[in-house]
Amino acid sequence: MKKVIFSILIFCYSYSNANPDSLIIRKIYDEALENGECYQNLRSLCKDVGARLSGSPQADQAVEWAKKLMESYGFDKVWLQEVMVPVWQRESEKCEVELKNGKSVSLNIITLGGSVAGEGEISAPVIEVKNFEELEKLGENHIKGKIVFFNHPFDPKYIETFRAYSSCVGYRFSGASNAAKYGAKAVIIRSMTEAHDNFPHTGVMAYKEDIPKIPAVAIASNHADSLHQWIKNSQVARINLEVNCRTLPDKKSYNVIGEITGATKPDEIILVGGHLDSWDVGEGAHDDGAGCVQSVEVLRIFKKLGIKPKHTIRAVLFMNEENGNRGGKTYAEQAALKNEKHIAAIESDRGGFTPRGFSFDSDELFFEKIKSFQSLFKPYLIHYFEKGYGGVDISPLKKQGVPLIGFVPDSQRYFDFHHTKNDVFENVHERELELGSATIATLVYLIDKYF
Amino acid sequence: MKKVIFSILIFCYSYSNANPDSLIIRKIYDEALENGECYQNLRSLCKDVGARLSGSPQADQAVEWAKKLMESYGFDKVWLQEVMVPVWQRESEKCEVELKNGKSVSLNIITLGGSVAGEGEISAPVIEVKNFEELEKLGENHIKGKIVFFNHPFDPKYIETFRAYSSCVGYRFSGASNAAKYGAKAVIIRSMTEAHDNFPHTGVMAYKEDIPKIPAVAIASNHADSLHQWIKNSQVARINLEVNCRTLPDKKSYNVIGEITGATKPDEIILVGGHLDSWDVGEGAHDDGAGCVQSVEVLRIFKKLGIKPKHTIRAVLFMNEENGNRGGKTYAEQAALKNEKHIAAIESDRGGFTPRGFSFDSDELFFEKIKSFQSLFKPYLIHYFEKGYGGVDISPLKKQGVPLIGFVPDSQRYFDFHHTKNDVFENVHERELELGSATIATLVYLIDKYF
Repeated sequence: MKKVIFSILIFCYSYSNANPDSLIIRKIYDEALENGECYQNLRSLCKDVGARLSGSPQADQAVEWAKKLMESYGFDKVWLQEVMVPVWQRESEKCEVELKNGKSVSLNIITLGGSVAGEGEISAPVIEVKNFEELEKLGENHIKGKIVFFNHPFDPKYIETFRAYSSCVGYRFSGASNAAKYGAKAVIIRSMTEAHDNFPHTGVMAYKEDIPKIPAVAIASNHADSLHQWIKNSQVARINLEVNCRTLPDKKSYNVIGEITGATKPDEIILVGGHLDSWDVGEGAHDDGAGCVQSVEVLRIFKKLGIKPKHTIRAVLFMNEENGNRGGKTYAEQAALKNEKHIAAIESDRGGFTPRGFSFDSDELFFEKIKSFQSLFKPYLIHYFEKGYGGVDISPLKKQGVPLIGFVPDSQRYFDFHHTKNDVFENVHERELELGSATIATLVYLIDKYF
Repeated sequence: MKKVIFSILIFCYSYSNANPDSLIIRKIYDEALENGECYQNLRSLCKDVGARLSGSPQADQAVEWAKKLMESYGFDKVWLQEVMVPVWQRESEKCEVELKNGKSVSLNIITLGGSVAGEGEISAPVIEVKNFEELEKLGENHIKGKIVFFNHPFDPKYIETFRAYSSCVGYRFSGASNAAKYGAKAVIIRSMTEAHDNFPHTGVMAYKEDIPKIPAVAIASNHADSLHQWIKNSQVARINLEVNCRTLPDKKSYNVIGEITGATKPDEIILVGGHLDSWDVGEGAHDDGAGCVQSVEVLRIFKKLGIKPKHTIRAVLFMNEENGNRGGKTYAEQAALKNEKHIAAIESDRGGFTPRGFSFDSDELFFEKIKSFQSLFKPYLIHYFEKGYGGVDISPLKKQGVPLIGFVPDSQRYFDFHHTKNDVFENVHERELELGSATIATLVYLIDKYF
């Protein structure tokens, strides 16, 4: 008996701030860290399926993979939601800079998603601009017939790297049309990264109406620095660029959805999701295999611990975030049609790194109520609760008034991997990924209990 | 004029919480992130000097390297402080498990620092224990003549990995004597890590008086798991272990010290430091090249920004943290002899990862005053201000009543690298390291101004 009392005392001591919520939250973290399955699931998604751009055979495989995974966990419902997705295919790309001394050097480039192909090899002089203002100043006189090199680096002074990304990504997205307006033949965009390496970063781009479509590629940051030096020293004769790719008709694909039905409010949904598609290079490990396996893990943890939610907890693995967000749009349309009520939507799409907290795109009332939970997260070093962006996939739910929540992991390494062939399973850290699952599960638990 | 006013307005907006401190803190971070030199300094320490165990020629080189670096920055004083250090040298190590089916398998091991050599090859049966309690229960009857395998893994449930380390490191430090007490011939310790890989982790061990000294090695976690399985299935015939190493007489070495002399209170010192020695494998990049280059960077940033501290800001690169802490002890002895007054001592020795905050081994008054600065750190996502450990090197200053402060970066990856050949420059992230320098510099700035 003494032993029992002693054990109880020790137990109480270990959970010194113990209230029922902190006990359950401790169990959630323990389960994720001791018996977590998200890391092994990510390995399977990355290695058995791999890169999975919308419309590709691998994206079809990923849909099957995700459905089977959720079924294997015995969620109350698992189903596919039809989504029509764009189909863009990379074939090949090649870029050489011809120097005036007769040498030519191959540059690491990657075609941007959505780009048109070049008509054969484009061979033209290159002109470097730092930003759109410089482009406008130069105008048709200087731009026509040339390849425009947008060399706008990330500003290292931003603490959160996503802010640096936001201030640069316009060059990738609309650099082509802005340059084509003045007669450019193609554009080369400095990769969206703070890293100094040889990996070029792809990503979506789009054309403006009534402006000729020209090929658009991204160049690795180290090679952007070399090209900059050569241009600065007037050493460049011309650039030879080959871009082969194509756009095919839209194709049927799916969002993959699984849920634990709510015990007392089954018609009120807490959504947790990521996107199942990735770019066609690497393995889509951080972007966004991590968010997918974490979302599924939240439901697995609930089931494993026997937590019976009041509301329906729904994991949504969206298709086509990368180049169209058709999955997110379709999901919101269908939710509106069916009059579904979402009390919150959480998205994990910023990599599988150490969790720091969440950003909230919601009204004050919701935000303040969540902030009142903050002390429960403190033992897990979760401290970031700020107004901010939710996520691309869940964004179409905004007009239905759904509070949107973005999961915020540490951002320092994300753009080392984003949209490159280096975004592979080996670059995801097991504990960091697991801590993320537990952190999201904790928020879902608290929203379910107190909303 | 309108333009000027507009610029001022924009400027004020950008620094919306602007007070003089937050403006200077912003400049500190900008300098570290835009013009930081700690990353290139770390590259040089790792690649030009490399591993630098106390008493080795490389440790001598590191002393020269550090002195030159500080002199190149024009600090007000740079000097060497003599320290007598122990000299332990690894020669070779080899471990094979002989299975009953006649096969033998090589295991990745590394001799622990301070171990004695084996007398020729030790060939003996192996017995696995999970902890000291199991060892005691088995006693001499079962232990005598055997090699003891301590297989005590990190508990993954700890959020901060240093807590898991603390609960395991006793096996590495004193496992040998505890087993030798019962007649063991050698010990194999499971490596101090949460990672599942093939890198064995060295680290310091010591012998108790009046107990025979036996060789002690660490085994890679994957190989520990294999050995565990073989033992569990009664497949192991014996283990053949060769350990060659030696201890030589103590040798003269140095702490390397540089300072910016205080403008109004030159006799009051704020110390910031790391340790210059490392283990003899890898490059001592996270442990503790990172802490050294960050400490120097703090002073560089002060000089570059023209911040004239009231107190003396002193960077101390301690010798011999890894296997004796002679540098830390000598420094504290000398400080006491010279009647030096340290108003705070900050140590960076937990890796060059994203900074989270600081832990304080100080009185309440000091701690509460520091906590009042917390909001100034918020834009930089620095949130961790807790009572806790300062650091090994600064610990001997405690009895002089000096407030000790440990710099706390994210801990998830530290024990992936700690004391292995994998602790190399390439595994340190530039921005994470720089953010650490800025965070420490900010704390030094605030202590200097308000204490």
